[in-house]
Amino acid sequence: MSYIYSNIIGSFILGDDFRIVTKQLFKTVKNYQDREKAEKTLLKKYPKSKTVPKEKIAAILELFKDSEYYSKFYQNNILLTKQLVRNSVNTDNLILQTISNIDDLDKTTNILVKRLRSWYSLTFPELEKNLNNHEKFAELVATKSRKELLKELKLKDEDIMGAELEKVDLEEIKLLATNVHQLYILRDKHEEYLKTLMEEHCPNLLEIAGVTIGAKLFEHAKSLRRLALLPSSTIQLLGAEKALFRHIKTGAKSPKYGVLFTHPLVQKARPKQKGMIARTLASKISIAVRVDFFRGKPIGKKLREELESRFGR
Amino acid sequence: MSYIYSNIIGSFILGDDFRIVTKQLFKTVKNYQDREKAEKTLLKKYPKSKTVPKEKIAAILELFKDSEYYSKFYQNNILLTKQLVRNSVNTDNLILQTISNIDDLDKTTNILVKRLRSWYSLTFPELEKNLNNHEKFAELVATKSRKELLKELKLKDEDIMGAELEKVDLEEIKLLATNVHQLYILRDKHEEYLKTLMEEHCPNLLEIAGVTIGAKLFEHAKSLRRLALLPSSTIQLLGAEKALFRHIKTGAKSPKYGVLFTHPLVQKARPKQKGMIARTLASKISIAVRVDFFRGKPIGKKLREELESRFGR
Repeated sequence: MSYIYSNIIGSFILGDDFRIVTKQLFKTVKNYQDREKAEKTLLKKYPKSKTVPKEKIAAILELFKDSEYYSKFYQNNILLTKQLVRNSVNTDNLILQTISNIDDLDKTTNILVKRLRSWYSLTFPELEKNLNNHEKFAELVATKSRKELLKELKLKDEDIMGAELEKVDLEEIKLLATNVHQLYILRDKHEEYLKTLMEEHCPNLLEIAGVTIGAKLFEHAKSLRRLALLPSSTIQLLGAEKALFRHIKTGAKSPKYGVLFTHPLVQKARPKQKGMIARTLASKISIAVRVDFFRGKPIGKKLREELESRFGR
Repeated sequence: MSYIYSNIIGSFILGDDFRIVTKQLFKTVKNYQDREKAEKTLLKKYPKSKTVPKEKIAAILELFKDSEYYSKFYQNNILLTKQLVRNSVNTDNLILQTISNIDDLDKTTNILVKRLRSWYSLTFPELEKNLNNHEKFAELVATKSRKELLKELKLKDEDIMGAELEKVDLEEIKLLATNVHQLYILRDKHEEYLKTLMEEHCPNLLEIAGVTIGAKLFEHAKSLRRLALLPSSTIQLLGAEKALFRHIKTGAKSPKYGVLFTHPLVQKARPKQKGMIARTLASKISIAVRVDFFRGKPIGKKLREELESRFGR
């Protein structure tokens, strides 16, 4: 009677008494992944070897506390764990980090651009009043002189209520503007990159929900797998957790949509229809996400066209 | 009997009946500021003119509703107001904006660098663990390749638990790192600039309190004038408002210091002495700020030396 047993340092044939009879040690952790090869070689010599019964495994592991094996056992274990952790990094992680960073950038540029507006108003309050677009504001202050801006707004110098600052003072404001402008550019690049990731990872979701809503759904579910496993009714309410629990606790009206609220189809529907459209949209998204997860044939375009023909585009 | 009267469009001699006898109109708003000149010329002709009694002014203003004067009156008024607003922008404003922006930058870079750390950990978690300095972290990720970083930390590739990302994925992280690094540089520049402003505007405060504490005191008081008018006991407690009101409302212990707590002299004092030192420090700061506001002879260095000789440096 003999047993065959493999662990991360090698494959072994064990005798009746569960002592090692013969062995084939692995050179690298990679070999462990191809352990069947080593096992085959051993089985040629001991063709009737059985696998080890479960209750014996603890006892067998004691063998490897022997100094001959222990340090290798320990090292390989760490290497293997590292490899597994490494390989667990996937597109899901990249997408989530990018989405979170876009959120962070929105938050931070908003803080900084407000400071910029208030600071630059010391010298040119009229620009602040006439230009609501934050991104454009940062760009103009970063790239244009006061004179050029006056010309653009068709104002003369004496119309301006702001003080003429010294060059060194203006320079600090421009530095801030340049940095804020760069952050806006970074945000755009991230969004472009996010789209590329999604085109590869979840093209059908992207097709039907768009980058922003697709990303938000993703963020709520944390991974494509979990998103694919959610029932469509849950997808319909992702992002409406607060209203949902209020409904459950106090009997207030149940929410009809969460992040789907901003989808164009829901947006332009009449109030009474919004709930129904959100429900249908969620069911189509649910299908799209499952096709994405199981790498099925592209279906997003067809789903989107169905929706559009039913509810108008 | 005749009266002399000036407003923003000119100087006038008024008759007994308060009608205009003769006038000298101003060409620009600038002339209004030199109105004494025009008045002198008029007084040569009408040497006995008196100023207008207060109760008549409302009636006289009615004269200028006449179409001959009205539009000029209106325009000059606006121009003058704009000029006054312009001139109200002073170093106080610049200092306050710079301080607030440094605060904003601290807040925002902190958000972004945390995102960077978590994102970069997908590919190189060991760097995140070994390097606590946020600024250095951003700089390294922005400027060094993974290989160079491995060398620096004396690690081999297989020691790393992070995944090897594609170049395009790494590129996005590096873009973020570059921007965060730039924000740190901007913050340093702002601090340098703030110091220059304070050296000119409140050198004595700067000498005795340093940039950070000086700026915080400034931020609480909103202007040098108000800071100079504060009693030293208030300066001692600036930044401790919460504790002070808790003391007043609930009878809890009264606070001994606000932003002064971080001053080196208070920091290294024994606990029992901290309150007393904060009190003395506040009184010296109060003197320094008043000298700053009234543009007196430099006294900061002397005050600082007195403090240091008394409490050790």
